[in-house]
Amino acid sequence: MPVNYATPAPQALFPVAGVRLGTAEAGIRKKDRRDLTLIEFAPGSHAAGVFTQNRCCAAPVTVCREHLAGDGGIRALVINTGIANAATGEQGMRAARDTCDAVARMLGCEAHEVLPFSTGVILEHLPVDRLIAGLPAAQADLAPDHWHAAAHAIMTTDTVAKASSRRISLDGKTITITGISKGAGMIRPNMATMLGFVATDAGLSPAMLQKLAKDAADVSFNCITVDGDTSTNDSFLVIATGAAGCMIDSESSPHWPAVRDAVIGVAQELAQAIVRDGEGATKFITVKVGAGGTAAECRLVAYAIGHSPLVKTAFFASDPNLGRILAAIGYAGIADLDAAGVRVWLGSGGEEVLVSEHGGRAAGYREEDGSRIMQAAEITVRVDLGRGAAEATVWTCDFSYDYVRINADYRS
Amino acid sequence: MPVNYATPAPQALFPVAGVRLGTAEAGIRKKDRRDLTLIEFAPGSHAAGVFTQNRCCAAPVTVCREHLAGDGGIRALVINTGIANAATGEQGMRAARDTCDAVARMLGCEAHEVLPFSTGVILEHLPVDRLIAGLPAAQADLAPDHWHAAAHAIMTTDTVAKASSRRISLDGKTITITGISKGAGMIRPNMATMLGFVATDAGLSPAMLQKLAKDAADVSFNCITVDGDTSTNDSFLVIATGAAGCMIDSESSPHWPAVRDAVIGVAQELAQAIVRDGEGATKFITVKVGAGGTAAECRLVAYAIGHSPLVKTAFFASDPNLGRILAAIGYAGIADLDAAGVRVWLGSGGEEVLVSEHGGRAAGYREEDGSRIMQAAEITVRVDLGRGAAEATVWTCDFSYDYVRINADYRS
Repeated sequence: MPVNYATPAPQALFPVAGVRLGTAEAGIRKKDRRDLTLIEFAPGSHAAGVFTQNRCCAAPVTVCREHLAGDGGIRALVINTGIANAATGEQGMRAARDTCDAVARMLGCEAHEVLPFSTGVILEHLPVDRLIAGLPAAQADLAPDHWHAAAHAIMTTDTVAKASSRRISLDGKTITITGISKGAGMIRPNMATMLGFVATDAGLSPAMLQKLAKDAADVSFNCITVDGDTSTNDSFLVIATGAAGCMIDSESSPHWPAVRDAVIGVAQELAQAIVRDGEGATKFITVKVGAGGTAAECRLVAYAIGHSPLVKTAFFASDPNLGRILAAIGYAGIADLDAAGVRVWLGSGGEEVLVSEHGGRAAGYREEDGSRIMQAAEITVRVDLGRGAAEATVWTCDFSYDYVRINADYRS
Repeated sequence: MPVNYATPAPQALFPVAGVRLGTAEAGIRKKDRRDLTLIEFAPGSHAAGVFTQNRCCAAPVTVCREHLAGDGGIRALVINTGIANAATGEQGMRAARDTCDAVARMLGCEAHEVLPFSTGVILEHLPVDRLIAGLPAAQADLAPDHWHAAAHAIMTTDTVAKASSRRISLDGKTITITGISKGAGMIRPNMATMLGFVATDAGLSPAMLQKLAKDAADVSFNCITVDGDTSTNDSFLVIATGAAGCMIDSESSPHWPAVRDAVIGVAQELAQAIVRDGEGATKFITVKVGAGGTAAECRLVAYAIGHSPLVKTAFFASDPNLGRILAAIGYAGIADLDAAGVRVWLGSGGEEVLVSEHGGRAAGYREEDGSRIMQAAEITVRVDLGRGAAEATVWTCDFSYDYVRINADYRS
């Protein structure tokens, strides 16, 4: 059960002019599930992406990078679940290229206008013949209003489909932004996460589209962690069809601020949805670290807290064993941190209590206040490092029996 | 249940000339348990230690560092469980100093010849009056053969007491080395671990004793991880009474190699015992990374594998989902790693199978071989980075339901 998250209804996901989606059962790893998704874009569409920094990145990630190295012109995404096509060597590269070739032949475009994505088990080979055999059914299913079905088809250990959509009105033009994402474990994106796709009918120049993808990833998918494991397949893509009739080619374009804000809003909703549906999650935890010397050191501290199995099991137990947070701050890696200058608050809803200051327990802190707040499903840990003005936020979840169960059972 | 580890019998723990140990029930946090340990050393004994690098280190760690800043002359250790006296501010510092003062008065020595150690819950105050009231009972219990009882008295979430002992004979002199340790969670030592004490009746100059403590920690307590959480209280101490009548004052001293090897052997046994008794552990896993450019990058990779919740849950499930190991290698932080040059073996007993090479699954690897090895209680993951000649080893355990249970329940 995700924490305070439900998939938006199909009609709440607005079609994006120039985008059609189709899904099919290709039998990649298991029978009787829609494990193949095709997303088709009108001619003139462009994409920009950010991808995993994992050095053992998957074959489709390598192919995506190659295909986006040109002008970013794009006609289709092809996404399979079941097999990640990662750590599959030369055979994996051939499988990813063959997939793009087959889609290009089918749609009448160039192979470099097709981007492949895979998610699932690592170190096993993609049954590329079955994937290609499933493509015509996905093509036959293409429709502008199939975002909801696509969000379902890209799930693996996810318990809910993740999608977000907004419309903004600018000078009488309506611009739509709709996105989907998947991911629940192996989540500690380093540049992006396990499959996030956001499409808009705004038009953006290649440079502005790349900036938008990076800006949005930096404040959304790059701020979440479930288990600290950076996937081999993390990919976040922004696609702009331009069909709405507006063009953004610089930061001074009048529509840039509103489109940027809307894309960031969609990306944050999708990223937070992954944490809310984190494997075994029962709590959604926001870690805000402020008054740091640099944003980088604030992120170190926020991730140390967000990754600590001891902190995460305490949240699962609703046990205000908050010394574990102090321990995580202490080992985060700030060599000259003065523990006496650190303050820690715990909050939920409108309430916030000071837990620690002057290197110890805050004078006014009462265990019963900590216990009450720890019961909430949404909790904020706020840390003040007392060193400067920089800040960073990380979203994470707790660590439960079900995380172990899910990951001990994943392949079976 | 620890993995292939049982506490040595009392008679297997050789007394060290010049050392007496006593335990008592002080009621620090819970009733009816021996939670206070006093270890007394003959005049002329010296100690050297390495301590946690956690910036929120506990008050007793700070006091130990101060007391060892002199000539390292030492007469007693005083150790309590229940409360860690960490994140306790000025009040915690006073409690640690008051403890040393009380021991010094009782034994007729100087306060700076007493070293205090605490382990237990963080962010709660040490009931120093109860601790001091318990000291006379611990003194009355002092005896040379109470190592076994002391090993039990310093346990917290440990399921077995940890001790190791050896005798070596050098030029007709018998030298004894006996040590105890504790720890099962919040284990990712950064310089040393949650309480390890090794005593010898060899004599060592302060410089050689310090070198010995660091050398031993570097290849024992600094090579283990249970959950990646570096404790606030990690302390590893080597004490030399000199009562055996030998003196080591340089690396060219004839007894140095044998004494060094024996101390390292005891320290490694104690460190591995902590992993074997890791919270919820069902498997003992050795991660050996070789052919690296530097030892530091080998350690990065070994710890990435050893910390990954996904790798650790796969070991718990005996599921050879070995792509997760490749993913951990890829995100360990070697920016220019060539995935195609990495090889990974899985082994147990006398058997070892090549799992991955050339960026993918090894041609000869069969899933049934991986499955068979994953069933073993002791498993080695060997990684060849294909970049040089450096190497590093890390010992870790798997990640089970019981880790979550233990840490969700710890304070209750």
